Amino acid sequence: MISKNKIKLIHSLKLRKYRDKYRLFVAEGGKVVGDLLQSFRCEEIYCTQDWWETNRHLQKAEIITQRELEQISFLKSPQQVLAVFRYDDSPTAEELVGLPQKELCLALDDVQDPGNVGTIVRLADWFGIKNIFASFATADVLSPKCVQATMGSLARVRVTYTDIPAFLSEAGKSCPVYGTTLDGEDIYKTELQSNGVIVLGNEGQGIGAALPCLSHRLYIPSFPAHTETAESLNVAIAAAVVCAEFRRRLI
Amino acid sequence: MISKNKIKLIHSLKLRKYRDKYRLFVAEGGKVVGDLLQSFRCEEIYCTQDWWETNRHLQKAEIITQRELEQISFLKSPQQVLAVFRYDDSPTAEELVGLPQKELCLALDDVQDPGNVGTIVRLADWFGIKNIFASFATADVLSPKCVQATMGSLARVRVTYTDIPAFLSEAGKSCPVYGTTLDGEDIYKTELQSNGVIVLGNEGQGIGAALPCLSHRLYIPSFPAHTETAESLNVAIAAAVVCAEFRRRLI
Repeated sequence: MISKNKIKLIHSLKLRKYRDKYRLFVAEGGKVVGDLLQSFRCEEIYCTQDWWETNRHLQKAEIITQRELEQISFLKSPQQVLAVFRYDDSPTAEELVGLPQKELCLALDDVQDPGNVGTIVRLADWFGIKNIFASFATADVLSPKCVQATMGSLARVRVTYTDIPAFLSEAGKSCPVYGTTLDGEDIYKTELQSNGVIVLGNEGQGIGAALPCLSHRLYIPSFPAHTETAESLNVAIAAAVVCAEFRRRLI
Repeated sequence: MISKNKIKLIHSLKLRKYRDKYRLFVAEGGKVVGDLLQSFRCEEIYCTQDWWETNRHLQKAEIITQRELEQISFLKSPQQVLAVFRYDDSPTAEELVGLPQKELCLALDDVQDPGNVGTIVRLADWFGIKNIFASFATADVLSPKCVQATMGSLARVRVTYTDIPAFLSEAGKSCPVYGTTLDGEDIYKTELQSNGVIVLGNEGQGIGAALPCLSHRLYIPSFPAHTETAESLNVAIAAAVVCAEFRRRLI
């Protein structure tokens, strides 16, 4: 049986204000919780009897009823287990500014939709990108919707919030800064390095404050060229096509 | 001023039952409504005075207050204009079964999330794919959430609901049937034709009933190979990478 205070705490974690205050966030479902257990300190696990039967090694788990799970879950269809994780201080963007010299990273310039941010974290994981830098106006990756969309990839991809133009100005001194724009060069005709930063922009406005920091503007050609098609691609879709192309060159 | 009956009608169009009954659906925002006006018969347009000032050629438009717009909109932040469109009988899948012999099409095998379906319509448009076939269990492309995610691309991409395994068995007699699976062949090492069907599966289960119909199983390699990464890619993300690769080969 969960106490009222714990229910209240979990509900409060829907808001960034309380996640920042307590430095806690919520994850749900066996896959997501299982992955995050490998990377984050777990404060509480609430699960149904059924789930516990196959996960008995998790001694901390508190068995609750389906009804109780529905009370605390942020999902329309609660998924057997919900956990509260702690996040600790991680390195600052200043400390990580040398990373794009060695490896490919992403930068999010005000990506607003939590589903898009979560999907980008998941595809970054697929394509072996370990670090994402995000502007302060980018959706919080620890929001329940975003955590669910990452499908556990938050365990392997670090997201660091920072002043993106300042970060890119500094990082760009020693590596290329790519960005997807509608006036860019055909990505298939551009030389791509295996290090640097790929900047992704806002859903409506595209890349904004970070635009002057780009050293290469990339464009994903529509097909057939010069016919009426969609005006643009969703930001996570563009991210996927670009990351896949960077990786294809290395295979 | 909108009558109560019209408000009631619009609200009812959130449900597939009533969209099917009246053969009507709702679209919102200047971009989406503007695109759909080119392809669908418009029954009603409700807009704010501001929007009308720059769209006076739309004589049918009824000017409403922001408060009224909020009453009828399905969006958290209503976007100046909402229109009700009629959809007519379009060709059946049986009539279109010869299409994949001539051009590249998509087939959706129980893609459940309306956002994913809408995003797939939008990227199909970008990559010049004009026809999508969808199983009956796939999310309805005329739901408000889906229409918004297409960003107007529904005006240029036709979605036809049908029995997908039966359709693929027939279409596959004269063209390749590709599908994205986790046990497939590296897409970058596979010969890809410029015609045929690309099958995309359910978010949780992947391709189901359509699996025996595939002539080629494709896999998007993760990076670096054989390390722990995300378990899978979101279906719209996989669709984007695959469609981009098919089109890249033709450029």
